[in-house]
Amino acid sequence: MPRLILAKIAATLALLATVLISTTTVLADETTVNYDIIPRPLADTAVLLRERALLDNLSVDIVESLTTEVGARRVGTDGDKRAIAWAQAKFRELGFDRVWTEEVPVEYGWKRGDASAEIVSPYPHHIVLTALGYSVGTGGDLSGEIAEFADFEALEAVPEGNSLKGKIAFVSYSMADFVPQPGDTRMAGYGKGTQARSRGHVVAAKRGAEAIIIRSVGTDNNRYAHTGSGYGYEDDVRKIPAAAISPPDAILIQNMLRRGKPVIFKMNMTSQITAAIKGANVIGEISGRLDPDNYVVLGAHLDSWDEGTGAIDDGAGVGSMMAAAALIGQMEQRPKRSIRVLLFAAEEIGLIGVREYYRANLNNLDQHLLGAEVDGGGGRPHTLISGVGENALPVVREMHKLIAPLGIAWSDANDATGASDMSVLGRAGMPALNFMQNSNDYFDYHHTPNDTFDKIIPADMRQLTAAYATMFYLASEMEIDFRK
Amino acid sequence: MPRLILAKIAATLALLATVLISTTTVLADETTVNYDIIPRPLADTAVLLRERALLDNLSVDIVESLTTEVGARRVGTDGDKRAIAWAQAKFRELGFDRVWTEEVPVEYGWKRGDASAEIVSPYPHHIVLTALGYSVGTGGDLSGEIAEFADFEALEAVPEGNSLKGKIAFVSYSMADFVPQPGDTRMAGYGKGTQARSRGHVVAAKRGAEAIIIRSVGTDNNRYAHTGSGYGYEDDVRKIPAAAISPPDAILIQNMLRRGKPVIFKMNMTSQITAAIKGANVIGEISGRLDPDNYVVLGAHLDSWDEGTGAIDDGAGVGSMMAAAALIGQMEQRPKRSIRVLLFAAEEIGLIGVREYYRANLNNLDQHLLGAEVDGGGGRPHTLISGVGENALPVVREMHKLIAPLGIAWSDANDATGASDMSVLGRAGMPALNFMQNSNDYFDYHHTPNDTFDKIIPADMRQLTAAYATMFYLASEMEIDFRK
Repeated sequence: MPRLILAKIAATLALLATVLISTTTVLADETTVNYDIIPRPLADTAVLLRERALLDNLSVDIVESLTTEVGARRVGTDGDKRAIAWAQAKFRELGFDRVWTEEVPVEYGWKRGDASAEIVSPYPHHIVLTALGYSVGTGGDLSGEIAEFADFEALEAVPEGNSLKGKIAFVSYSMADFVPQPGDTRMAGYGKGTQARSRGHVVAAKRGAEAIIIRSVGTDNNRYAHTGSGYGYEDDVRKIPAAAISPPDAILIQNMLRRGKPVIFKMNMTSQITAAIKGANVIGEISGRLDPDNYVVLGAHLDSWDEGTGAIDDGAGVGSMMAAAALIGQMEQRPKRSIRVLLFAAEEIGLIGVREYYRANLNNLDQHLLGAEVDGGGGRPHTLISGVGENALPVVREMHKLIAPLGIAWSDANDATGASDMSVLGRAGMPALNFMQNSNDYFDYHHTPNDTFDKIIPADMRQLTAAYATMFYLASEMEIDFRK
Repeated sequence: MPRLILAKIAATLALLATVLISTTTVLADETTVNYDIIPRPLADTAVLLRERALLDNLSVDIVESLTTEVGARRVGTDGDKRAIAWAQAKFRELGFDRVWTEEVPVEYGWKRGDASAEIVSPYPHHIVLTALGYSVGTGGDLSGEIAEFADFEALEAVPEGNSLKGKIAFVSYSMADFVPQPGDTRMAGYGKGTQARSRGHVVAAKRGAEAIIIRSVGTDNNRYAHTGSGYGYEDDVRKIPAAAISPPDAILIQNMLRRGKPVIFKMNMTSQITAAIKGANVIGEISGRLDPDNYVVLGAHLDSWDEGTGAIDDGAGVGSMMAAAALIGQMEQRPKRSIRVLLFAAEEIGLIGVREYYRANLNNLDQHLLGAEVDGGGGRPHTLISGVGENALPVVREMHKLIAPLGIAWSDANDATGASDMSVLGRAGMPALNFMQNSNDYFDYHHTPNDTFDKIIPADMRQLTAAYATMFYLASEMEIDFRK
């Protein structure tokens, strides 16, 4: 064990004495925990871990390290290669017992190139535009009259054919204006926004359009275009360029169109699809002292889009999950079962890393006792949602009581499958836990150049880390079958 | 008078009947007005004008028109020429009695060109950078080690000579972190921030630096660089490139420097200073019915920086001042004395338009009875500051009572000289009024690509317009000498 870690443990033991005194009140509140379900020594150790995590800035320091020393890391780029090396080194520095990578082949790569756009008439303007992931380029300047569609459904409602010939389809739907209705799922506004981002270029091409631009899928009013998607063409449909424009520029174009004059748009993108590339999932393990071949898994994705430094997406996930496991690893003894942190490759272009992981681990899926992922920023957790069997449910409710003092509510839904990557494993049967987080500003920065370290709120990250550390420490210690 | 305006007046008269009823309570509060000083019919008309302005979106519509139909308009550019034509047409459309321009020669022009930057080592990153106004270019790639200075004073403290040879000076001062101390003037944080923006390239060059970059002068956390300054070289000092970087990138560089390794920065700017150009002040007048050769003046600047569409800087000033005068012009009769709206050229590069105006109007400065300018965005006005003679002060205090119902306080300072351009006339003796406004987000957007129409808050703009319309209507009707 590195000397730094030993020194840290010594310092922490001193701290724990203080915490024991200062948390007396909290422990008193926690006498509602049923010690027949969670033995008192285990519950007390979990509380100490939680309080220690609340005081430890490690999760934030990890995000700072990743965003400063690596930055943008789209799969297959030099940044991605640096990220893979960084993650292995960081796991080792943090005292993980095993660290390894698993190669992830990706069928083709992509070069972003340059992107520029302007309104030619009736009023010349510079427009902020970004290529959507894996879009083809424009092959020089591409001009056309804007044909506006209020949303993806309106574009789809146009009969297939050539009615958009010579035109640039513009889907002006604003996620910022989305008002959830009863029955809407979480993320419904994002889901509606991403329809055109994911499929607009195919649908527009089938109607003859020369290109498609969409209002960025985001909640901000900044003059950034939000990139996203990837891997979206169909073999038998003409490949047209796809790009997002910034919210202020979308409003500008709508205000021009309201004047009743044709709006002529010119764009130039040198993006291009390239040969196959390789990424890698990076895995770190705190090995269990009694049953190392069964493990709880904490997930995040290591790749990011390429214009920001990927602090909230998904540096926050990398930082909180690495730190949660590292803090468990810094306790006096290893947990009974292993804790694995899975940092997935190529999430942004369609969960490619986790799918590869799933294929490779089909035979040992049952060894994944419980999983979770953070891929919604570093905001404060407010609600715990379980996704476990009926037998395990009363135990998880008791476990929740040990994080309730963090202001985290309990949801009865019991439908968690693990967010993002982890949902692939969750849907295949792996039990899951997840915290709903404050994500008010997440889609302000998401997939933009503005996703940078300064957007991380340290106190929130520490709280998030403490919540995961506590729950997964308990899960790794208790001999429970979480399966449905 | 155009038919549109006539129709609008008819509609407004109908509205006024309603307002008369709905404002009964407000009028009752206003019985504190001393009708010996402001005759009751005049006070009542001022209240009607105020209430009408609060319901009229004209100021917002003007900003929308300017930012949509013109957009960016740095002096000497095609956008500026379009703005000059737009302003004249808009004055006429709004029923102004006289509209004219006054040419403003500018000694040299500037081409922004392209700007890009990156950190080469220890960790490669793309950096968001913008040339400061009137900077020279880099003549190809320019690389150097970053030498950080906490603020302008720290840079100035380096003895002149060659100690910064081969280096790029980086002034990391953050306006966002400025905490006002007792005795600080308004705008002190901005003032401190602009020291390096205005003079850093001269001071750095005298110490041997190859270039200077500054943390943007702004209060936001967006990944935009704020441009500004202009016209800043000294003849006998080497001209080095000057640029601003975004706040997140400034933090990134500081975090790298903290690691103790040299940070190598590479920049490329193709900006260049060009031949002399011409701008124009555009002036619209609502001519007085009794004494047209004396006038109150409402100022704003028509030019903008070139990366946004100049909505808050200074579309908000153009919109509120044009609308305030137009609303006065839509009353049943012309005011006694004239109302002039002065839209100045070339404010952004050093108040050049107003200086030309001053030179041309030296002999009739006394005909400028009272002046004001809006150049701090479209935020809600909260405090009125006068800058008038002792004799006029009791009258202005009575006038203030008619806008106090808008939630506008009175300041005893009586030191207003008119903001921005107008301060040139104010310091030469012209009496002035100004409203302090809510400007919390002004320096978030200021001089960035993000200064766009969506940042205008319509209700605030209407309130601002109502305040100026009411005060300057009263001033134009009353036979008061406002002079100190």
